[in-house]
Amino acid sequence: MKIKTFAEVAQNYKAIFFDSFGVVKHYSGLIAGVKDTFQFLDQAGIEYLMLTNVASRSPRQMADGFANLGLPQITTDRIISSGMMAQEYLRYKVRDGKAVYVGTENSAHYIAETGLQIVSIEDLDLAELDDINALVFLDDEGYDWRTAVNKSINLLRKKNIPVVVANTDVAYPVSRGELAMAIGGLAEMIEKIVNKNFIHFGKPDGQMFIYAYQEMLKRRQIRKDEILMVGDTLYTDIIGGNKFGIDTALVLSGNTQPKNAKSLIKNMGIKPDYICESIALSTPEL
Amino acid sequence: MKIKTFAEVAQNYKAIFFDSFGVVKHYSGLIAGVKDTFQFLDQAGIEYLMLTNVASRSPRQMADGFANLGLPQITTDRIISSGMMAQEYLRYKVRDGKAVYVGTENSAHYIAETGLQIVSIEDLDLAELDDINALVFLDDEGYDWRTAVNKSINLLRKKNIPVVVANTDVAYPVSRGELAMAIGGLAEMIEKIVNKNFIHFGKPDGQMFIYAYQEMLKRRQIRKDEILMVGDTLYTDIIGGNKFGIDTALVLSGNTQPKNAKSLIKNMGIKPDYICESIALSTPEL
Amino acid sequence: MKIKTFAEVAQNYKAIFFDSFGVVKHYSGLIAGVKDTFQFLDQAGIEYLMLTNVASRSPRQMADGFANLGLPQITTDRIISSGMMAQEYLRYKVRDGKAVYVGTENSAHYIAETGLQIVSIEDLDLAELDDINALVFLDDEGYDWRTAVNKSINLLRKKNIPVVVANTDVAYPVSRGELAMAIGGLAEMIEKIVNKNFIHFGKPDGQMFIYAYQEMLKRRQIRKDEILMVGDTLYTDIIGGNKFGIDTALVLSGNTQPKNAKSLIKNMGIKPDYICESIALSTPEL
Amino acid sequence: MKIKTFAEVAQNYKAIFFDSFGVVKHYSGLIAGVKDTFQFLDQAGIEYLMLTNVASRSPRQMADGFANLGLPQITTDRIISSGMMAQEYLRYKVRDGKAVYVGTENSAHYIAETGLQIVSIEDLDLAELDDINALVFLDDEGYDWRTAVNKSINLLRKKNIPVVVANTDVAYPVSRGELAMAIGGLAEMIEKIVNKNFIHFGKPDGQMFIYAYQEMLKRRQIRKDEILMVGDTLYTDIIGGNKFGIDTALVLSGNTQPKNAKSLIKNMGIKPDYICESIALSTPEL
Repeated sequence: MKIKTFAEVAQNYKAIFFDSFGVVKHYSGLIAGVKDTFQFLDQAGIEYLMLTNVASRSPRQMADGFANLGLPQITTDRIISSGMMAQEYLRYKVRDGKAVYVGTENSAHYIAETGLQIVSIEDLDLAELDDINALVFLDDEGYDWRTAVNKSINLLRKKNIPVVVANTDVAYPVSRGELAMAIGGLAEMIEKIVNKNFIHFGKPDGQMFIYAYQEMLKRRQIRKDEILMVGDTLYTDIIGGNKFGIDTALVLSGNTQPKNAKSLIKNMGIKPDYICESIALSTPEL
Repeated sequence: MKIKTFAEVAQNYKAIFFDSFGVVKHYSGLIAGVKDTFQFLDQAGIEYLMLTNVASRSPRQMADGFANLGLPQITTDRIISSGMMAQEYLRYKVRDGKAVYVGTENSAHYIAETGLQIVSIEDLDLAELDDINALVFLDDEGYDWRTAVNKSINLLRKKNIPVVVANTDVAYPVSRGELAMAIGGLAEMIEKIVNKNFIHFGKPDGQMFIYAYQEMLKRRQIRKDEILMVGDTLYTDIIGGNKFGIDTALVLSGNTQPKNAKSLIKNMGIKPDYICESIALSTPEL
Repeated sequence: MKIKTFAEVAQNYKAIFFDSFGVVKHYSGLIAGVKDTFQFLDQAGIEYLMLTNVASRSPRQMADGFANLGLPQITTDRIISSGMMAQEYLRYKVRDGKAVYVGTENSAHYIAETGLQIVSIEDLDLAELDDINALVFLDDEGYDWRTAVNKSINLLRKKNIPVVVANTDVAYPVSRGELAMAIGGLAEMIEKIVNKNFIHFGKPDGQMFIYAYQEMLKRRQIRKDEILMVGDTLYTDIIGGNKFGIDTALVLSGNTQPKNAKSLIKNMGIKPDYICESIALSTPEL
Repeated sequence: MKIKTFAEVAQNYKAIFFDSFGVVKHYSGLIAGVKDTFQFLDQAGIEYLMLTNVASRSPRQMADGFANLGLPQITTDRIISSGMMAQEYLRYKVRDGKAVYVGTENSAHYIAETGLQIVSIEDLDLAELDDINALVFLDDEGYDWRTAVNKSINLLRKKNIPVVVANTDVAYPVSRGELAMAIGGLAEMIEKIVNKNFIHFGKPDGQMFIYAYQEMLKRRQIRKDEILMVGDTLYTDIIGGNKFGIDTALVLSGNTQPKNAKSLIKNMGIKPDYICESIALSTPEL
C-alpha cells in the first residue's frame, strides 16, 4: 500500500471527518503543518468535523483549546465527542434521580446538563442508593482508582442500574513512547469483574458516525461516498469508518507508528483506503 | 418489575420495532394471538417494522413466509434484516471482484445483488485468490462446517480482505428446549482463531436501529421517544434499543424464559422498560 | 445434591486440603465451630494443609494469625501459598538483577528471599531499566493504582521481561456483602491491555495441588483418592481439586452463598462431590 | 537473542523434554537431521521424553509411528500425551456410566481403557441421558462438526456433567502454510457458547510437566535445573516449561517461523532461554 500525501487524498472528497488526538494535535501541541491543512480545506470548500472519543472536556472547552493553538476554525459545532452520545443516552433513558460519575468534576458537566443530579464515585454512600439511577465513566483522572473500582463493583452488586462508558478508548499517549490507561480500559476491567453489560459510546460504534453524518447534512447535501474519515487508530477510526461505509485514511502521526503500520494492518485485518504520513499537505523529507 | 399486557404497553407508542423470531413466530409457526395484535396495530394506526438478525433469507422470502402464516401486513418494505446492512457495506466498500460466502446458495443473493461475483467457501481454491475481495458469513447451513472453518482460516492467513458477519446471533432455538449454533457463533470462533477484526452487522449494533428509524420517518414523522422496541433477547433487542435511546419491552415467548427472566435481567445488567408475556394483546391464564 | 455435615464427610478421608479465607476464617475472625473441627481432625489422625491464594503475607505471618485466633495447630509448614509458587519460579528462572513489585513492602519478602533486589513500582524509574528482570504482582494495597497501572504498561512496552502474578484471585470479600478487587484482577486487566502472557500462580492451577500433595507425602503415605479438597469457591478450589483428581467439598460459608449455590454449580458446570454448610462438625439449626 | 545449534544447547542438560509435532516430525515425516540427534542423545547418556498434546492416538500408536519413521528409541514409555492426563481424570473422578466422545473411534480408546462405556456424539440420543456422566473432546475428525457442536450444546443444557478437553491445541499445520483447527479450538468455542467451565488437559498446564518429571525420576535422579524443554510453540511448550521452572529452547521448524520469531517473542512476552533452527545437531546453511 503506497503512502500518499494528504493533499492528493483530500482533494477527492467534499467532506472530511477527523479524529483529533494523534491527527490534528498530540501531547505537546499541534502536529506540524496542520494550520496549512485547515486553510487549504477552507479555501477548497471542503467541509470537516472532528469525531473524538472524549468525555473529559466539553466541545466548548475543546474548541477553546483549538483556538489557543491557532485553529479558530474548529468551532464548537464542528466537534462531536463520545461524551455527547453518552449525554443523549442519559437524556432519553435515565430521566431523573442521580447519576454517579467516575471522572473529574469538569467531566461531570456532560451529565449535569441533562438535569440529572451528580454524585462523585468518591462521595457515594453505598448505604444510600435509593435515587441512584446510573453510573457513568467519564475520565481517568479526578479520583483514587482503587476507591473507584471497589465502589463501582459494590454499587453494581447492590443495584441494577445502567452503566454508561462515555469513551471507549483503552489507552492514550502521554509522551513520545509512553501511554496512560484511559477510562475505557478501566471501565472494561470493571465490566468483566461484575459480568454485566455496560453501554459503551465512541468510535468505532456507528452512532458517532451517523450523528456526524447528520450534522454534516445540515451544512451540505453530500453522499457517503463523498466523505473521508481520517484517523490514527485502526480499531476505532478506520474500522468504524469502513463499517459505516465511507472511505478511510490512516495517518502515521499518532497511535500507529510508521515502522509497524503494515504489519498491524495485516495482523488486525483492518485496511484503510489510504495511508498518509500525517495530515500535513505535503510530506517533509523523513 | 411488573408484567403488563402488550395492549397496555403498545397503546402509548406511535411506532413499534419488532424482533421477529421468538416474538412474532417461533420454530413451529406463529406465536398465539399475534394475528389479533397486528390487526389491532393497523386499526390503531400504530406503525411497525421488523428488525431481524437474518442473512439466510431475503426480505421478500421473509414477507412471503409471514403471508403464508396469515400476516400479509408484514410486507417486504417492513422488514429490515442484518443481511441488508451487510449488503450495504459490500456495495460501498468492496465494489468489485469476488466475495466468498459461507451459507446456502440462497443466502448468497444478499451478495449477488451488489454485482459482486460469488464463490462458495466449499468451491474456493486456496491457490487462486487474486480477485477474492471479501469473505461473508451468511448462514449456518449449506456447507460442511469443518471444511468451511479450515478454508476460512487459511484464506485469511493468505490474504488480507474484509470479513463480513451478516448476522451476529450466536444461537437460535430449533425446538422447545433445543438450540442450534447460528452463523454469528461460528464466525466469532474463526475471528478468535485468526485474531483479526471482522465486521459484524445486526442488533444490538446501532446501525440497524438508525436504518429502521430512517425507514420509519418515510412513513410518519415521529420522535424517538414515540417508538418502542419489542424483543425476546436481552443482549440484542433490549440493550440495542436502550442504547439507541428508545423504550424497550422484553417478551417471554422466546429466548428469555419466564422462570429466569428476572435473574437474567439482574445478572446481565440489561433492563427493559417493560416485560410482557408475549405480544398477544391480553395474557392467557398461565 | 444433599447437604451433609462436615463430620460425615471428613471421616472418609486420611487428609484434607483446606482453602483458608471463607472456609476457616473470614473478614472478622474464625468461622463458627472451626476450633472443634481442628481438634477433631487432630484426634482422628486426619492430616491437613492450607492451600491459599495469598501473596501479601508470608506463611509465618499467616501461621501467627491463626495462632492469635486460637488455631496454633496451623503451623508454617502446613501453609502453602500461591506466593510460594511464584517465589519458586523467580528462584529457578530469574536468578539475578532486580524485580519490580506491585504490593506492600511486606509482600515483597516473597521476592527478597530469593536474593533478587526489589524495587517498588512507585519508585521505578522508567529511564533506567537495564537490570530490571521481572515484574511481580503481589498485593492490591501499598501503592497508588493509577501510577502502578500506567508504570506497568510502560515498563512492559519498553522491556520484555517475565511478569509473575502471585495470586490469581480476582476479588475478595471485605465485609458481609462487599467485595474488593484483588491483585489477580488488577494484573489481568494490565495483561489484557499490554496483550502479553503473564505467568499466574494459585488455585485452580495444578501446581499448588502437586506441591501440596508432595508436602503431604512427607507426612504420610497416602493415595490421591484418600484426600479431600475443601473450599468456598467453585472456580478455584473445586475445579482445581476436581482436575487434580481428588474429591472436593464446597462449603457455603464464604464466596458461594447458600441461596445461589445450586444455580452456580449448574451454570458454571463445576460439580463438587459434597456440599457442607461450613466446616463446623455439625450444622446449627438454620 | 542469538541462535545456537542444538548440539551446543543440549550438552548442558541431563534430560530433555521434547514436543513432538513441529520438533521431531511434521506433516510429511521426520524433520531433517533428527535421527542423528537421537543417536547423539543416546550416546551422550542424555535422557528424553516426548510431551505431546495429542488425544487422537495412543502412546503405542505414536511409538509405532516413530519406529516406522526410523526412531525406534521413542518407545511407548517415553511418550506422555494430554490424552493420558484426561484418562487419569476420568479414572479418578467419573468412575462409572457412559462418556460421550467427540473424535474418532480410535481416539475413544483413551476412555474405553478406564472401563467407562463410550458413546459417539453422533450416536447420542438427547432423550436418554440418564447414565451419561461425561463429555470428552478427543479429536477434530470422525464426525460431522455441525452435528457435534449442536448436540454438545444441548447435552450440556440438559445435564450438568464434567466436560474434558483432552488436547488444548487450537490449530495444527497440515501442510507448508496451511492450518487446520484442532479439537481444542472446537471445544473452546462450545465452552464459550454454553458458558461453563471445561477441564482442559495439555501443555502449557503444569500437570503434564509434573507427570513427565515424575516419569523422568524413575529413570534417573535429576534436578529441575538439569532438564530442558524443547518446543516449537511459545504459548504451550515455552510458557509451560518456563512456568514449571525448567529451561526452555524454542525451535523454528514448526509453528514459529524464523521470520517472525523475534517479534512473536516480544509481542507475546514469552521468552525462551535459547533459540535453535531445529533439533538437528548443526544448522545447515540457510
